[in-house]
Amino acid sequence: MATTARTTDRLLDAVQAGVTIYDLGRPLTVGMPQSPNHPPFGLTLPRRHGDMVRADGGSAANDLLVMGTHVGTHVDALAHVSHNGRLHGGVDAAAAQVGGRFEELGVHTVAPMIRRGVLLDVPAALGEESCPPGYEITPADLDATVCRQQTPVGPGNVVLIRSGWGRLFDDEDRTRYVGKDSGVPGIGADGATWLAERRVHAAGADTIAFECLPPGKGHSVLPAHRILLVDHGIYLIETLALEEVARDRVYEFTFLMVPLPLFGATGSPVRPLAVVSRD
Amino acid sequence: MATTARTTDRLLDAVQAGVTIYDLGRPLTVGMPQSPNHPPFGLTLPRRHGDMVRADGGSAANDLLVMGTHVGTHVDALAHVSHNGRLHGGVDAAAAQVGGRFEELGVHTVAPMIRRGVLLDVPAALGEESCPPGYEITPADLDATVCRQQTPVGPGNVVLIRSGWGRLFDDEDRTRYVGKDSGVPGIGADGATWLAERRVHAAGADTIAFECLPPGKGHSVLPAHRILLVDHGIYLIETLALEEVARDRVYEFTFLMVPLPLFGATGSPVRPLAVVSRD
Amino acid sequence: MATTARTTDRLLDAVQAGVTIYDLGRPLTVGMPQSPNHPPFGLTLPRRHGDMVRADGGSAANDLLVMGTHVGTHVDALAHVSHNGRLHGGVDAAAAQVGGRFEELGVHTVAPMIRRGVLLDVPAALGEESCPPGYEITPADLDATVCRQQTPVGPGNVVLIRSGWGRLFDDEDRTRYVGKDSGVPGIGADGATWLAERRVHAAGADTIAFECLPPGKGHSVLPAHRILLVDHGIYLIETLALEEVARDRVYEFTFLMVPLPLFGATGSPVRPLAVVSRD
Amino acid sequence: MATTARTTDRLLDAVQAGVTIYDLGRPLTVGMPQSPNHPPFGLTLPRRHGDMVRADGGSAANDLLVMGTHVGTHVDALAHVSHNGRLHGGVDAAAAQVGGRFEELGVHTVAPMIRRGVLLDVPAALGEESCPPGYEITPADLDATVCRQQTPVGPGNVVLIRSGWGRLFDDEDRTRYVGKDSGVPGIGADGATWLAERRVHAAGADTIAFECLPPGKGHSVLPAHRILLVDHGIYLIETLALEEVARDRVYEFTFLMVPLPLFGATGSPVRPLAVVSRD
Repeated sequence: MATTARTTDRLLDAVQAGVTIYDLGRPLTVGMPQSPNHPPFGLTLPRRHGDMVRADGGSAANDLLVMGTHVGTHVDALAHVSHNGRLHGGVDAAAAQVGGRFEELGVHTVAPMIRRGVLLDVPAALGEESCPPGYEITPADLDATVCRQQTPVGPGNVVLIRSGWGRLFDDEDRTRYVGKDSGVPGIGADGATWLAERRVHAAGADTIAFECLPPGKGHSVLPAHRILLVDHGIYLIETLALEEVARDRVYEFTFLMVPLPLFGATGSPVRPLAVVSRD
Repeated sequence: MATTARTTDRLLDAVQAGVTIYDLGRPLTVGMPQSPNHPPFGLTLPRRHGDMVRADGGSAANDLLVMGTHVGTHVDALAHVSHNGRLHGGVDAAAAQVGGRFEELGVHTVAPMIRRGVLLDVPAALGEESCPPGYEITPADLDATVCRQQTPVGPGNVVLIRSGWGRLFDDEDRTRYVGKDSGVPGIGADGATWLAERRVHAAGADTIAFECLPPGKGHSVLPAHRILLVDHGIYLIETLALEEVARDRVYEFTFLMVPLPLFGATGSPVRPLAVVSRD
Repeated sequence: MATTARTTDRLLDAVQAGVTIYDLGRPLTVGMPQSPNHPPFGLTLPRRHGDMVRADGGSAANDLLVMGTHVGTHVDALAHVSHNGRLHGGVDAAAAQVGGRFEELGVHTVAPMIRRGVLLDVPAALGEESCPPGYEITPADLDATVCRQQTPVGPGNVVLIRSGWGRLFDDEDRTRYVGKDSGVPGIGADGATWLAERRVHAAGADTIAFECLPPGKGHSVLPAHRILLVDHGIYLIETLALEEVARDRVYEFTFLMVPLPLFGATGSPVRPLAVVSRD
Repeated sequence: MATTARTTDRLLDAVQAGVTIYDLGRPLTVGMPQSPNHPPFGLTLPRRHGDMVRADGGSAANDLLVMGTHVGTHVDALAHVSHNGRLHGGVDAAAAQVGGRFEELGVHTVAPMIRRGVLLDVPAALGEESCPPGYEITPADLDATVCRQQTPVGPGNVVLIRSGWGRLFDDEDRTRYVGKDSGVPGIGADGATWLAERRVHAAGADTIAFECLPPGKGHSVLPAHRILLVDHGIYLIETLALEEVARDRVYEFTFLMVPLPLFGATGSPVRPLAVVSRD
């Protein structure tokens, strides 16, 4: 039997007709750039092959993983940020975290995403390779990008904003991508409002903090987090790998992302995909 | 703008026409049943709301995650198991693990899976609610199941074998699902050969160990792991939640699974999905 | 030069004249009995010899330690327990823990202990090998023990109460020492008051919970913790190894214990010593 | 009863006559300077007061500790370093670490130390506040220091070498103490031989790496580790706090150090003490 035979399922037919998968997740490696605000990524082998060999010659190696949930490519659950003591929907933050986990608004409540995704390649619209350090991407920049690409953004979409900063992820100097001194480009309050008005489901960026960080200020205020997570219940995805989709000008795609069901957590590492049908 | 407008992408059209998503991953909670061979699942909030409030009234909570990679629903990379000192393809296990990570055959080399998936509901074919403890599912059982369901299994497919044991996952007695004393149902060497002959891409089960565990013997020998991982390079997925797809008789679907790109690890927690087009 | 020459320091002279050291700490091993209320003990080698060899042939192995601070032999800081929202001295528990660490009353505030220590071998006084499971050691038992041993207890002393339960620490069935179903012997509210009246500095036991646990009740109420930690600021030491000192009838000694200065923590693993001059 | 009454134990009498304790351990805090070669120090509260309140109003908070064993003030076990595949005594390093722990030469084999300790205040002898960055302390420097202090060093002693570098531990710039670019002062191969010839039991320093690090070279070769740990079985203690003992000119004392009995580990965090009788 040919397993690529036409089935009665439209989705499966589309999959079996052939798809191209773009990996939007960064590899998780010890020593990779990450925010100093979160527990660092660690991975080690407690058991190696040969430590314990079974009677039949078999042996198994295994891992211990230690990490914050906001390191590497990750999604922010709505429990992550509060404003004046309130989470999204007016939930009392202090009460919600009793027990050391968020039964409400934790990352286990984030449904898997299989949705229309749109890449907004901002520097391409600005005629640059990358937005400068600390540059605030404006609503006008977003409009210009949509216009150039002919990819309108609508309700329920997942919008990924490329600043070009992601090219520094693999820089030898691991502090460059974090950008504490230089600042990092991204949207600010106005860009967040632009996204909220379009009622997107989630928004992502190729930077650690998603939003614009002015030089030397770090994470002192994060207005886009407040507007998107707290005010509008829009999920944020950070540290995305967007260079490859941008290079191939894949601006519209099926966006796939499945957060781990970490019960009560404020975020989850993810490996999102952009998937398109092959010609 | 209607974002569900017909696009030029067949896959995105199928997605936007409506899909039903079945979650095949177990929630990750402190205290859930897991194999004692792996570091236990832990999750805690180092920072809670109110610990550090920004000038504008904003506050962020975050997590620390500590876990083995073979706990909860997870995938085994080919680096996980060796036989007589060799990994799949004859790779020398001792050499491959120098440095404390598997550059070859680590879980970062497992490509995201968007493939035809087949659920084999074995107890349904046997006329039972669940296979008995320690029962070895035979090739004849698998053939009978395929026949009853009319879902042939072919090259590149992902095959999920339901034993019914997954109904114990939420049992109050957390040791029942692990089944050390009782044994656990699953395929043995013969069932593994059946899968390998069909050249499947990956195989999963609703149990911790994937394969049949005789009563009281634990993981003393694991022939299916050897045949599938080492001999044939077929990935294994364990601790799947298969009750819901079985209940709805969804035997064929688009299987989605995206392992975390944990560089050099022997496995990864995953949250696989079975997706079907809505009528 | 003889380094054991008489110095001008009385303490050093006593040390150099010869001392016998009793180790009162349990080895910390993966899988040892511990309370299920605390993160389990884990230890692994991220780097092994040969993973990275220096130019000169040198190589270093190292460890990753993951554990609760109330596992193995450990001391409870005053921050560990609150009653009606108050820590010792009326400190507001909710306020004290903001920031995720106890600047006040954390284990870093526990000074190293070099003090008179007294072992109270209760079963020896009762004419038994061990107190029965769930037995509450009474003030009369403590008085009888002091009397038999001729070791009065006074202000500033460290008092170690042997119940004999510690002989189960190495039992093959790792659940016996924890004693959830059987109960565990120890003092109750009355015994705690007896200790508090004598103004001891710290009190210890050869059990996980220090105090009497009735069968099947687990840690549902812990009156001795309240009386000692909260009401009187007396430190508790748990999971002590007291069999050897008891065997040698060493009832009075120099007690040495140096908690790790874990800033803000509620406890610390320790390896206390009983030291006596050699004849 | 006066508990300070003269007992029949010489050591306890000396203790009860009054002692002054110098704390030679650094507080363990998140973000403190540490070697990038080891898993970073992390500490968090999984349970806070109020998360779970017992019927009687009681509540307990607890911790999760995640750390390398060579961070903060710590001792190196003999298992830590190998040379040409051999540990101290010719033990085969590869064989010794099978199972992921060192049954031989692990830190659980390091006996508690209650010994004569000698502080060698090298910069005081050199007429400086601190040795310069990258300065190699020579045998002549050590001799001059012993001579100035009139504190000969002999078999079984613990020798603590002050370079003055420890004053940078609390520097705002957390990279200064690590000293990767600047280099760090300490002994080299010759100083290690000087110590080995005197058959000391252990040697310590106020720096992370114990020995001299030339500017920019990091830990590329560590000859003193080889000579002391591998060739002579002499333990090393790093990141000591020596400013206070130096200030008070306490050059000879009872040295107390009790490593945690971490079964099979290559090192342990410690909090060593220098103790002297009060006048």
